[in-house]
Amino acid sequence: VFKRVAIVGVGLIGGSFALRIKKKFPAAKLHLVSRKPETLRLAKKLKILDSSSHQIDQSIANCDLIILSTSIEDIPVKFKQLLPHLNPQTIVIDVGSTKEKICDAIKVIDRQQNFVGCHPMAGSDKTGLSNASVNLFENSIFAITPHLKTDMKKVTRLKQWATQLRMQPLIMKPRSHDEVVAGISHLPYFAAAALVEVLGDDEKNLRLKKVMASSGFRDTTRVSASDPTWGAQVANHNDRAVVLELQRLIDSLESFKNQILKRNNALVLMRLKKIKKLRAGMF
Amino acid sequence: VFKRVAIVGVGLIGGSFALRIKKKFPAAKLHLVSRKPETLRLAKKLKILDSSSHQIDQSIANCDLIILSTSIEDIPVKFKQLLPHLNPQTIVIDVGSTKEKICDAIKVIDRQQNFVGCHPMAGSDKTGLSNASVNLFENSIFAITPHLKTDMKKVTRLKQWATQLRMQPLIMKPRSHDEVVAGISHLPYFAAAALVEVLGDDEKNLRLKKVMASSGFRDTTRVSASDPTWGAQVANHNDRAVVLELQRLIDSLESFKNQILKRNNALVLMRLKKIKKLRAGMF
Repeated sequence: VFKRVAIVGVGLIGGSFALRIKKKFPAAKLHLVSRKPETLRLAKKLKILDSSSHQIDQSIANCDLIILSTSIEDIPVKFKQLLPHLNPQTIVIDVGSTKEKICDAIKVIDRQQNFVGCHPMAGSDKTGLSNASVNLFENSIFAITPHLKTDMKKVTRLKQWATQLRMQPLIMKPRSHDEVVAGISHLPYFAAAALVEVLGDDEKNLRLKKVMASSGFRDTTRVSASDPTWGAQVANHNDRAVVLELQRLIDSLESFKNQILKRNNALVLMRLKKIKKLRAGMF
Repeated sequence: VFKRVAIVGVGLIGGSFALRIKKKFPAAKLHLVSRKPETLRLAKKLKILDSSSHQIDQSIANCDLIILSTSIEDIPVKFKQLLPHLNPQTIVIDVGSTKEKICDAIKVIDRQQNFVGCHPMAGSDKTGLSNASVNLFENSIFAITPHLKTDMKKVTRLKQWATQLRMQPLIMKPRSHDEVVAGISHLPYFAAAALVEVLGDDEKNLRLKKVMASSGFRDTTRVSASDPTWGAQVANHNDRAVVLELQRLIDSLESFKNQILKRNNALVLMRLKKIKKLRAGMF
């Protein structure tokens, strides 16, 4: 679908896209943009680099797809830097974990019709190109979040492309995306972080808790090992939905606490059964 | 160390002990007690059964170690059923996830000197003998919780035995065990359950949340698939510590919520960095 693809920011996500694109479209040329010489060296070793630059410049102009895989807050900044190098057909996508504020920031920029907000629903607590994987996005949802002025022809091409990369494209509104992702990604992240924080704050039992923590604690808190900058930016960008989800979680935990205090075991058991059943239908 | 071992309750934990004992002590004889004929048939197939019965009876009398791996609330009941069949040397252990109330219930029973409270720190959300694994306890902590009247010679033998099974014995007070396990096992369970519950309660976004949930949500909520009866009994038995830990988690989440509302990003980022660092020192 695309002959020349640029990837701006070659970390876990950008790198995994590069690996996958080279595998599925061997003829496609990849132009990688990274400040870090060692990242570009590793990319060359991995045979995912056809050309490169340390920042966005004229060398990106002949690409037909540009993937912005930088931090959330950097995406509108990078889009502005792209403006002199875009022609009407160029498609620019991002892969940020929030969509509404990014799309709102892009909307007010001239050339917004070049942009389509996207979010591949896969990730890892590991970061960097060295942890990238050709299979990271296999069968995962690829959210595409057009708004009123989005060029729908570009969306159609992206759907095709995502399908060929073996992702499942899913069109949704930016706000709806953010509400959903707050519940299934941002909230679990803060819950995991809070579990680790309260362990750290229990000075009396800290040593024993560290020694005795086993696979349950490890898996439940795995996502708290994600990049803290990502977590803080997500909270800042998706504050409305994250705060709402945090309140929901607090209410559920309060309710468990009160039922346990009241020794209402039957009710606790009923809720736990319903929860187990709901989750069994998901994974 | 033990020539004849009885296992009362042959589920995931009892079955994993049986597999491990047969591997590490091929000469040891195993006597399995299970109500379910199909469990005893599977045990025979797995070559972990030398003799069996459907309930505790005279056939258990010549065992030198008896492992009670039933549900938490059944442990004192089963211990009472054992009384006519014990001699002073017999060691009875349990493997329940809480210790203080179990040990308190045993303390008032004659023959309490036969009993030593134990808890292997490994498990799974899967249940039943069919999910048992010979490696489940490999390198895991084996908590032993003696109280004032416990026969310390029996504790010494159990430490030896656990070490030979390649577990790490750890002597601690029942109450201390319960406080620690509340934080590293019971709290993560309720946090995971609450994450699933609030997803289920969001009717507006439920369908999309189910479709888009990925590895992060899956891993963070894995333990919510555990047996609900276990969860309810744990909450009931370890109520004091579980309520305390729930409150700590609620306070941490409230604090994140308020910092996000106040746009105090620097503070959120600082906490997330500290959390990532603490967890990196654990796993």
